[in-house]
Amino acid sequence: MRAADGTNLQTLQDYLGLHLLRDSAEPLNRQLYRHLRGAILDGLLARGSALPASRSLCEALSLGRNTVLHAYGQLEAEGYVASRAGAGTYVSEALPDPPPAGAANRQTASSSLPLSLRAQTLLHGIKQRGVAETPTFAPGMPDTSAFPWALWLRLQQRHQRDAPAAHLGYLSGGGHPALKAALAGYLRLSRGVNCDAEQILITGSMQQALHLVALATADAGDTVWMEEPGYPGARFAWQAAGLRIEAVATDEEGLCWHGKEPDPKLIYVTPSHQYPLGSVMSLARRHALLQQAAERGAWVVEDDYDSEFRHDGRPLAAMQGLDRQGRVIYLGTLSKVLFPALRMGYLVAPPDLIEPLRILQARLMREGSYIEQATLADFIEDGHFGAHLRRMRGIYAKRQSKLRDTLAAHLGDWLAEGDAPRPDQIALLGGAAGMHLTLRLPTGLDDQGLARQLGEMGLLAPALSSYCLSTPPFPGLVLGYGGADDATLMLAAVKLARFLAETLRRHNIKNE
Amino acid sequence: MRAADGTNLQTLQDYLGLHLLRDSAEPLNRQLYRHLRGAILDGLLARGSALPASRSLCEALSLGRNTVLHAYGQLEAEGYVASRAGAGTYVSEALPDPPPAGAANRQTASSSLPLSLRAQTLLHGIKQRGVAETPTFAPGMPDTSAFPWALWLRLQQRHQRDAPAAHLGYLSGGGHPALKAALAGYLRLSRGVNCDAEQILITGSMQQALHLVALATADAGDTVWMEEPGYPGARFAWQAAGLRIEAVATDEEGLCWHGKEPDPKLIYVTPSHQYPLGSVMSLARRHALLQQAAERGAWVVEDDYDSEFRHDGRPLAAMQGLDRQGRVIYLGTLSKVLFPALRMGYLVAPPDLIEPLRILQARLMREGSYIEQATLADFIEDGHFGAHLRRMRGIYAKRQSKLRDTLAAHLGDWLAEGDAPRPDQIALLGGAAGMHLTLRLPTGLDDQGLARQLGEMGLLAPALSSYCLSTPPFPGLVLGYGGADDATLMLAAVKLARFLAETLRRHNIKNE
Repeated sequence: MRAADGTNLQTLQDYLGLHLLRDSAEPLNRQLYRHLRGAILDGLLARGSALPASRSLCEALSLGRNTVLHAYGQLEAEGYVASRAGAGTYVSEALPDPPPAGAANRQTASSSLPLSLRAQTLLHGIKQRGVAETPTFAPGMPDTSAFPWALWLRLQQRHQRDAPAAHLGYLSGGGHPALKAALAGYLRLSRGVNCDAEQILITGSMQQALHLVALATADAGDTVWMEEPGYPGARFAWQAAGLRIEAVATDEEGLCWHGKEPDPKLIYVTPSHQYPLGSVMSLARRHALLQQAAERGAWVVEDDYDSEFRHDGRPLAAMQGLDRQGRVIYLGTLSKVLFPALRMGYLVAPPDLIEPLRILQARLMREGSYIEQATLADFIEDGHFGAHLRRMRGIYAKRQSKLRDTLAAHLGDWLAEGDAPRPDQIALLGGAAGMHLTLRLPTGLDDQGLARQLGEMGLLAPALSSYCLSTPPFPGLVLGYGGADDATLMLAAVKLARFLAETLRRHNIKNE
Repeated sequence: MRAADGTNLQTLQDYLGLHLLRDSAEPLNRQLYRHLRGAILDGLLARGSALPASRSLCEALSLGRNTVLHAYGQLEAEGYVASRAGAGTYVSEALPDPPPAGAANRQTASSSLPLSLRAQTLLHGIKQRGVAETPTFAPGMPDTSAFPWALWLRLQQRHQRDAPAAHLGYLSGGGHPALKAALAGYLRLSRGVNCDAEQILITGSMQQALHLVALATADAGDTVWMEEPGYPGARFAWQAAGLRIEAVATDEEGLCWHGKEPDPKLIYVTPSHQYPLGSVMSLARRHALLQQAAERGAWVVEDDYDSEFRHDGRPLAAMQGLDRQGRVIYLGTLSKVLFPALRMGYLVAPPDLIEPLRILQARLMREGSYIEQATLADFIEDGHFGAHLRRMRGIYAKRQSKLRDTLAAHLGDWLAEGDAPRPDQIALLGGAAGMHLTLRLPTGLDDQGLARQLGEMGLLAPALSSYCLSTPPFPGLVLGYGGADDATLMLAAVKLARFLAETLRRHNIKNE
């Protein structure tokens, strides 16, 4: 053992005097322990060197004897120091070398470990879609200000008060039975889904449902077909699950898969309201797709994300209702109809598949709160769900029409009237349902660049090309009109329209 | 077009008369539409055949005219039928062939599509661990009956009432700032974790944190080291992420990695309280492990799942506090200290890693409720967290000691007293912290078989071998004592002890 180094001990006492905080919530013995440990690990106290005698440290720092003894005891229990009767306390010889002196900014060394390739790919895709301070035009963002929050809390408080102990534990029923029954009734009636309550699984989000389905039905390297353009959230789920994504073009009737190889394990579609273009898959194409799925041994994942908000014409029933072979997995979300922080989605699966999905979710993802699920069941059964839906449908329809009017007023003849615009025109696609429109831009414009410029203006309108894996059919911007109130949205619409007019003028596109 | 087939029409009317429910919540026009659609899809109404005239169907079924017209209109809108002025309504010729007559039990055809290989592997592992009706002895199950639920609701109701609209939307802050600050303070003080609030990410569960870390730091095929035996939940997360798991044996000081190849991307450990054996990783081994991680370019995942409940001796500070290179990702859960249905865990990551983890979680998994997170922040800051922890520590310590006493009373000399049992003895391992003990069984016994028999008795005590990927070090049973009340637990302990005594007697193991 080396003798204590007087200078170092003085430095140590100075250091401790400086760093011990008398008015901290952290007890002094804990602070002392922590700083001594740091001094040992950083090499300020060398291996084998003596610690100050506890009495002298007490005096030097005006600490109680027990404070010092407690800290020394902890260091000894953890093996940092050893004490010998009569010989004082020494830093353990068995400790590893301290880090080199230059490594002051300690934790930056972690940058030498790269992220996984899949994380890098995912992050690239996520960041490409842009982030803005305001949710104006952010697609998929509902208006939560109109949600009957007080009523919801009243319903919820009853279930909170009476929560059985089991509802605080780990849950594995695939969802609260009352909610599954209420949803099954709603889906049969409103969406033509052919199911009973036992075929429903309540998930923590649409995203979780996508992940779960990918995991259960496909292995890494298997192929999934995706509409092009298509929902980026689904793309991220397939990427995270290691699937090979085959972007499949769509025409006005839906997916065009002719000649696609190899056979997919999953076919992901948004037949009721193609995301983001807004077209509806024809009945003939739906039947043909089910036939394809049967021939190729694939599951069909039907994402029915927003058909609750049908603004125009009769809704087509869900594709799931046409399925006679148990190939369709139907996905829905409550983030749009209620509010996103509820963290609730659901899926309807064929009977054979529901049990494995339930077990995998319960073990790998854990189920959400049955208190909130019971609340939602009441909300549906008492008719509040339907009433809220009707109210929001009205709000969104009016907002969409205002958005169209504002854009039309500022864009004049640049804006095509039908859905067959000239290549030098702007057109508004979709809008028969939901909470977004897709703005088709004249050929040749760089939608990514425009989206970036809009982002700098505080408007989050993602480029259509960020919904594509291959060459986009045309440049565009996706405009959500759910997340901002009327006044904010109209202000933003004017800003957007002026920006577009200026852009078109700069590109010498005539307004005739 | 073929003429209507009189017999078929009669059958159809009979069928409809039988299936239309007058007192259903589903409107009659919807029911009629649904049954007609089914009849078309199943081939009962052939392509090109006429539907009954709406007037005659009204009369035959005593339906209002509008009911029938509405149903026919919907079928026409969806393309199932076509109407010609004066010629009635006909089933569309463009529909696909109906399924063959034998395919009556429609949805069982889905069984021909197998689950993914990874799902099959996961399900095998999950099911192997057994499921019982009662949670008695289920490891990891806390006692939720002692949770101050009324107090929690009081705190929560304030945050619910005053919830800002943004807290109902999509969240991406990595957790409520107040909770991150409160947890950082708690972890620094109680666990010696070296972090500030910005290094914390609130997750939806420990399981989600494991999944997120796997995704962000390792690619499919990369190697993860896992303690053997080890936590099955972690194993499932690595399997779901496609990682190659290398089971690494442990001795009394911790992980023994000598000669292991190839280099891991992740090293997963439970240094404070090895799961499930209960040993504590020595300080020297911790330092050596950090050194190994640096040399091999690996992250260390420190799962500190239950050190809040330290029953015995001074707790060792978290390994994260020793890390000078930013290699440790520290994981904690609130399922044990509070209640599982809260769905809250957390991780502490080096500054460089926290931002990618936050973005991936927000996009792929979505964040949980900030209302509950704000409630928990209050619960911690107001001292309720500490008080509840102390109370539960007392309850669990007492329960463990009762469990030990009961087993000792019934097993006599079969039960070893120290921690070095003879091969023909039973020993209780661990118990210095947490809510479980591991019961080591005499060499040669089949723990899987015993666990199954116990399962039939309503006792869920998983076999130690179900925690292992290779040959287990010895047979054993893992006994959780958190999830059942004292009386239930003691009754179960007596049942278990008698069963074990009988088993040992049957195996001619002497009680001397």
